[in-house]
Amino acid sequence: MKKLAFLGPHGTNSEEAAIYMANLCKEKMNLVAYNTIQDAIQAVAQKDVDYCLVPVENSIEGSVRITLDTLAHDVDLMIESELIWSVHNQLLTKNPNAKIHTIISHIQPLAQCREYLKSHYPMAKTESVSSTARAAEKASCYGDGYAAIATKTAADLYNLQIIDTDIQDVEDNFTRFILLTNKDKVKKYQDVANMMIICQIDGRAGSLYELLGDFACRKVNMTRIESRPARTSLGEYIFFIEIDANVDKDILQEALMQASKKCFWLKNLGKFPVYKASNKLVNEIN
Amino acid sequence: MKKLAFLGPHGTNSEEAAIYMANLCKEKMNLVAYNTIQDAIQAVAQKDVDYCLVPVENSIEGSVRITLDTLAHDVDLMIESELIWSVHNQLLTKNPNAKIHTIISHIQPLAQCREYLKSHYPMAKTESVSSTARAAEKASCYGDGYAAIATKTAADLYNLQIIDTDIQDVEDNFTRFILLTNKDKVKKYQDVANMMIICQIDGRAGSLYELLGDFACRKVNMTRIESRPARTSLGEYIFFIEIDANVDKDILQEALMQASKKCFWLKNLGKFPVYKASNKLVNEIN
Repeated sequence: MKKLAFLGPHGTNSEEAAIYMANLCKEKMNLVAYNTIQDAIQAVAQKDVDYCLVPVENSIEGSVRITLDTLAHDVDLMIESELIWSVHNQLLTKNPNAKIHTIISHIQPLAQCREYLKSHYPMAKTESVSSTARAAEKASCYGDGYAAIATKTAADLYNLQIIDTDIQDVEDNFTRFILLTNKDKVKKYQDVANMMIICQIDGRAGSLYELLGDFACRKVNMTRIESRPARTSLGEYIFFIEIDANVDKDILQEALMQASKKCFWLKNLGKFPVYKASNKLVNEIN
Repeated sequence: MKKLAFLGPHGTNSEEAAIYMANLCKEKMNLVAYNTIQDAIQAVAQKDVDYCLVPVENSIEGSVRITLDTLAHDVDLMIESELIWSVHNQLLTKNPNAKIHTIISHIQPLAQCREYLKSHYPMAKTESVSSTARAAEKASCYGDGYAAIATKTAADLYNLQIIDTDIQDVEDNFTRFILLTNKDKVKKYQDVANMMIICQIDGRAGSLYELLGDFACRKVNMTRIESRPARTSLGEYIFFIEIDANVDKDILQEALMQASKKCFWLKNLGKFPVYKASNKLVNEIN
């Protein structure tokens, strides 16, 4: 049976998304929890597991830096598919009658709910831990005065009560997950929607403009660009570029070939289909 | 006497940089500590203080999202100058003989030292708090087994011992700080080096390419581009663009005018000089 790694422990958003993805793949898969996103990705690179499903971007808080940095610097994996997951943040506590002084969660949900926390719990401290499930576990263990931002599943698992629902600052709160695998295992799909490349260009005036021109002049639509420090020197960046893959494959190939000539290096993470689902509704949205 | 806000409490990197900046301004300034970056910026907007000096980017961990998001969404301030601050992360603890099980810091230094922590303290948990000084205070208060990543000043202030120095993953660890003030107070300098704009463009294919073209075709060099979610919908972004301001001012003005026509909105945070200094060396580097 194939193995799928996710950011554990049980009760995380990542686990809910991984269960959904495993069903979608129509293959029986063993889900394996890892302590960090980095560990889940490395487990694929080291072939301890076949796949991992990791978050890459949230619609409120932006990119998940550890995922981007690991993909750029540490591994050489491909994206098999993408899942757009609608996230519903719940506020959980053991004793709803106790005054809340500390709110625990992963840094992403803490940031997604920043305005809510400021207006509803201006005096409460926040504490960040490695996952939402770990936050629920802590809130359960510490008891009175502690709350966690986590999933409904975590509320059940850690015996907590939901005191507020959908507390994220913007109602539409999506996290994009990517399913990563090794090059020799990646499936080729007909209906691809997205493509991701990572590259480093020189710092010359107009370099990025020229690179984007290779796509724009062929009517290839770039849907997202994100920069990260190259970690070589201040002012040197690598770029994560996502492209609408729904174009003629020869044109796309030519654009990529031209673009790669302008880069110190270019990593192609492949073309892949995109699915959409929710942890609120059981059935698929799209 | 003028007031300058920084991210407190005493002993933070921000305070060290603020002291340096106050000296550079050749004006007597009262330094005022705020609990969060957001509060320091809002204090300027609400005219409780004249200036704030806040971090905007680190060479290892990338942009400081709360600074960018606050500048884009919540206030309408100008950048008066920039300080490139060379950061030296120290590992501090109360009792060097006790086995370290928890390492506390702000999320930025924790990320800057990620590889170091993984190789030297693989079993230690990390805990993020609102500033490096707060981390030192906590490590001092909790005692045995707790360490903080913080400044030398914090070691003195909170009676901790330095057990390792310069633990950041890359030797050159710079944080860029910006000095923010209100539009009616901003000084005009002759020797400007940098310029920052924030804008939102439509999601059409090639929109960003065309916008960058307004600068590239006039040989105006874009030195940095960073995207953040527009917080409207998944796939909509705002861009933070930095420009080498050392060009003819009429050409720059024309480029900006053309660019602004392609944007839903464009905020110009001004042209400003850039200084370089260090918390290791007492004298200015550059």
